[in-house]
Amino acid sequence: MPRPRGPRPSGAARRREGAAPPPRSRRTTDPGLSRGSQQGGDTLGGTHVAGRHAVRELLSAGRREVKEVLIAEHLGTSDVVDEILELARGSSVPVRETNRSALGRLAGLDVHQGVLAIAEPLRTVELDALAKPEGGGRATVVALDGVTDPHNVGAVLRSAESAGATGAVLARHGGPTVTATVAKAAAGAVEHLPLASVARIPAALDRLRSNGLWIVGLDSDGDSPLFGLELLTEPVVLVLGAEGAGLSRLSRERCDVLASIPRKGRTASLNVSAAAALACYEVLRARGD
Amino acid sequence: MPRPRGPRPSGAARRREGAAPPPRSRRTTDPGLSRGSQQGGDTLGGTHVAGRHAVRELLSAGRREVKEVLIAEHLGTSDVVDEILELARGSSVPVRETNRSALGRLAGLDVHQGVLAIAEPLRTVELDALAKPEGGGRATVVALDGVTDPHNVGAVLRSAESAGATGAVLARHGGPTVTATVAKAAAGAVEHLPLASVARIPAALDRLRSNGLWIVGLDSDGDSPLFGLELLTEPVVLVLGAEGAGLSRLSRERCDVLASIPRKGRTASLNVSAAAALACYEVLRARGD
Repeated sequence: MPRPRGPRPSGAARRREGAAPPPRSRRTTDPGLSRGSQQGGDTLGGTHVAGRHAVRELLSAGRREVKEVLIAEHLGTSDVVDEILELARGSSVPVRETNRSALGRLAGLDVHQGVLAIAEPLRTVELDALAKPEGGGRATVVALDGVTDPHNVGAVLRSAESAGATGAVLARHGGPTVTATVAKAAAGAVEHLPLASVARIPAALDRLRSNGLWIVGLDSDGDSPLFGLELLTEPVVLVLGAEGAGLSRLSRERCDVLASIPRKGRTASLNVSAAAALACYEVLRARGD
Repeated sequence: MPRPRGPRPSGAARRREGAAPPPRSRRTTDPGLSRGSQQGGDTLGGTHVAGRHAVRELLSAGRREVKEVLIAEHLGTSDVVDEILELARGSSVPVRETNRSALGRLAGLDVHQGVLAIAEPLRTVELDALAKPEGGGRATVVALDGVTDPHNVGAVLRSAESAGATGAVLARHGGPTVTATVAKAAAGAVEHLPLASVARIPAALDRLRSNGLWIVGLDSDGDSPLFGLELLTEPVVLVLGAEGAGLSRLSRERCDVLASIPRKGRTASLNVSAAAALACYEVLRARGD
């Protein structure tokens, strides 16, 4: 295992396999973190959920109340739409037909695929809770450092959830973190993946390290190849930087390892959501899952 | 190695390592394929290239003539824009300032990042040429079966090129195959990755098989796990189906192996571009590259 570059938590402080998840209501007073990120009481936006997969997962996850499902008039039948109607009936959620342009205005985006749901906002989980995944097992947390484009944020969450991540850390930027565009691009992943919202990613990395996680930054100039990285057998945070700019200096300094995905083509780099999928699957591979 | 399900080419017909690429002008008269796909004389569209990465790669690849680069007025400086200006100067391509809305109209899309180039159209390569990559080595060809959303097509091409694919097969659907949206989403990959355009993917798979490639379909219900698949040491075509619908019946029937990416999350599936990246990197891993 590579020698960590930053201070590491003691062995005793590291999470034990199979430990029970921490109580969700636990409060901490770490001055480096804002109130919301610790209490799990913040909301992430996401009251308007557009797109077929996103709405189906919203209904099937059943984690938040859905007030209404709006369906475009003259919408052709499809398996996913049928599923949505059935799920809505099963949970007594009203379904209403409306015209496409009204749907577009409500969704705040054009690409709604004729389906929109209005729901209670998404709620954050505590940052500390991400260190101890529900259901046990080792944590695989994805942290988005400077990834702000909503399509990219959504795509990363989708990749991460599909590839077995146990949680994600997002930075607040003054507005809702999960907009309708993020939720649409995430194709329902936001309904399943525990999400923590923080003021600053570097402080969140410190906090996660103190909870026993190792910090692995994805960096095209990183000196450790991602493939075969032994550290991935441990509970980890995978830090993904913005396309182009990469990791911020403050986040990079907090990484135990800077891991690179070997570049095989002539173009600049892989899309950040593809990098997230590769990294999460590499974790599973390292652990023999 | 799994036993192929379809007829296989004889050993003698299989490509030899290090063989010279075939002449580009060679013609064939296979009735199952249309004229353009064999001659390499077709164009794929892509005369208007928008977006900073796409334009930079267009200029740096130098594979087709660039007539003009348009830059939005009052565009802030950035490393990529500086690179574009330098590359344009170096190749004596005229650069003109214009207002953003005119740029948007020309690009045919809003997300142009203030940069647009007008170039000669992209040219296809022969399908047969994909079996024998330029520069030698074993072929890793990606075939898009029913992936028509231009963002997805572009994202797959980007992932594939970054992850070491040696070519891609796209189906024509009446219009240009590489629209401005595809080229933008591909972030320059279309300038480097050899692309063949065909009327029908199943016939193209037959043709590639007769050139010694093995056909590996990505299928969520596939009975061979992608990870660790030994067949990937051979020259392969990776067939990617549309999100939701998956592979078409006719393409599926032509696959030697149906390989699945293990589902680890609760959402439906990985984005097709993430699946492409995973599959192409798995090929490199299998080959020890």
